[in-house]
Amino acid sequence: MELRKDPITRSWVVLGQTEEPPLTVDPCPLCPGAATGQTLLALPAEGAWQVRVTPHTSPLYRIEGEVGRAAEGIYDKMRSVGAHEIVIETPGHDRRLSQFSDEEIGTVFEAYKRRIADLKHDSRFKYATALKNQGRAAAAEWTHAHSEVIATTFVPRRVLYELRAAKAYFLEKERCVFCDIVRQEERAGKRVVDTQGDYVAFCPYASRVPFETWILGRKHNHQFEVPRSESRRRHLAALLGRTLRRLEQISDAYHMVLHTSPNTGVRRGDPADYWKTIAEDYHWHIEIMPILPKGSRSYALKEIYFNTVLPEDSAKQLRALEASL
Amino acid sequence: MELRKDPITRSWVVLGQTEEPPLTVDPCPLCPGAATGQTLLALPAEGAWQVRVTPHTSPLYRIEGEVGRAAEGIYDKMRSVGAHEIVIETPGHDRRLSQFSDEEIGTVFEAYKRRIADLKHDSRFKYATALKNQGRAAAAEWTHAHSEVIATTFVPRRVLYELRAAKAYFLEKERCVFCDIVRQEERAGKRVVDTQGDYVAFCPYASRVPFETWILGRKHNHQFEVPRSESRRRHLAALLGRTLRRLEQISDAYHMVLHTSPNTGVRRGDPADYWKTIAEDYHWHIEIMPILPKGSRSYALKEIYFNTVLPEDSAKQLRALEASL
Repeated sequence: MELRKDPITRSWVVLGQTEEPPLTVDPCPLCPGAATGQTLLALPAEGAWQVRVTPHTSPLYRIEGEVGRAAEGIYDKMRSVGAHEIVIETPGHDRRLSQFSDEEIGTVFEAYKRRIADLKHDSRFKYATALKNQGRAAAAEWTHAHSEVIATTFVPRRVLYELRAAKAYFLEKERCVFCDIVRQEERAGKRVVDTQGDYVAFCPYASRVPFETWILGRKHNHQFEVPRSESRRRHLAALLGRTLRRLEQISDAYHMVLHTSPNTGVRRGDPADYWKTIAEDYHWHIEIMPILPKGSRSYALKEIYFNTVLPEDSAKQLRALEASL
Repeated sequence: MELRKDPITRSWVVLGQTEEPPLTVDPCPLCPGAATGQTLLALPAEGAWQVRVTPHTSPLYRIEGEVGRAAEGIYDKMRSVGAHEIVIETPGHDRRLSQFSDEEIGTVFEAYKRRIADLKHDSRFKYATALKNQGRAAAAEWTHAHSEVIATTFVPRRVLYELRAAKAYFLEKERCVFCDIVRQEERAGKRVVDTQGDYVAFCPYASRVPFETWILGRKHNHQFEVPRSESRRRHLAALLGRTLRRLEQISDAYHMVLHTSPNTGVRRGDPADYWKTIAEDYHWHIEIMPILPKGSRSYALKEIYFNTVLPEDSAKQLRALEASL
């Protein structure tokens, strides 16, 4: 496995076969009692676990060794070093995240937070995040409720573009573009799906797919993984739960990706690390991309998104759906 | 239909429903005798047509009217103005592009060239290109051999990133990054699939999917649509034909996209048009992305490409396949 940089678009591609065969599906390797890997984290800390984090057994990235950045003529490559972990969200084989209580969702978030904060202590990693693939159409590897924590030696393409655009906006306006977006969305109202405490769920103005939904905080904060008050944690968990229950009435498959700021604590002096100063101009958020049964024509036009449903119509439909447990 | 700009990644999204119902599939609307639209171009110019270009009947972009760039608070939008045309590649309902003679493929390219050159005379359009979706898995709209010509009031995201990276490379090295890539690939040999005349087909170093193949010219040229000698036309057509015959033994579905330079003849003085000077630092090429029956895990990791087959192995397999008609 190695990482190669596209010299044209400058995005990194993971290349090669994973070394171990993927975990079996039956019997479920994520159920309690299955001998799946070392426990990196179990929550709650005492008693039976609700959330258990374990290394991925056929990881895209390996935790050991140096990054080994090297040239191959005009190309750039490095070893596929990083972390790839499975977050088992519940011991119950047949439960979905959307069916969890607010407290249970909060515990999953707590696990993301602790693992991301821990991985950011490793100066080799430039980025750490959590993501979830729900459902077969989203290429979930197992049906048992789980998500993934990933740390990479590069900042993923989309996050890099976000960082650049947010920095350019801040340099011009001295305001965070995400804060401006939240304010405008709340004022307009028509794309807002739901709010709770300081958190807002809305369908973004230029949604790439029907019912795309983002969750952002009203208060500026670039890092998801900083500790937060108990009440804020509960608000975020409650809002995510309601949003997922709405979305799952539209589609049973989705991708959920956390976007948080890159690892800034290290490598000072490296000119490639322009994101050292992002505290003011980045804003963590969650992006949920539902996978609709009927493919949109966007794919047919390669690199141009085409979305048949206006986000204000998506938001209106989502608001009308039942959100209680 | 309107175009909205993602304020974070700055890519444009086409939003809304197309106004007309899509064309029927049966009877085939692309067969001779079907009353499909006005003829924008027919080739050869005399006698029965091999290639016929007609407006798309449920277009993503409309040819009439002003672009209407406007703000919506902090957001940017414009009308969905552009051109969307169907290139009927043959009167024969059951023939695929890969089965065409070199001369027939050359005629399809000639149609792309003429339509793109014509559309670039329209100063509203910043970009014009041709693309082909082959097969159901690539979301081809009809089985009858066809491709599309599209002109847009914006430069598509991936092309924009290419232009930026190529410009940065040229500013640093005073060489075209694509020319350097062709030279290194030919020297290394291991990712080269085939060559003909001044054209090279190879699997790119950081291939996003298994068997991804690009076709580039050895001679620097930023515009696909400039007239070329008869022998160069034949070389390109022959190389594409052989490449498609190889690829179709791996997968019967693919996306093929032409990347050419944006519309440079107009709008001088507009600061957004930094690509006016791209003549030296861009290089037209064709990208072919096969769609493999077994989905790669890339999608599961959102925004990070994961490709299980090294491009040198893809190229080796492709070279070993039969390429003759």
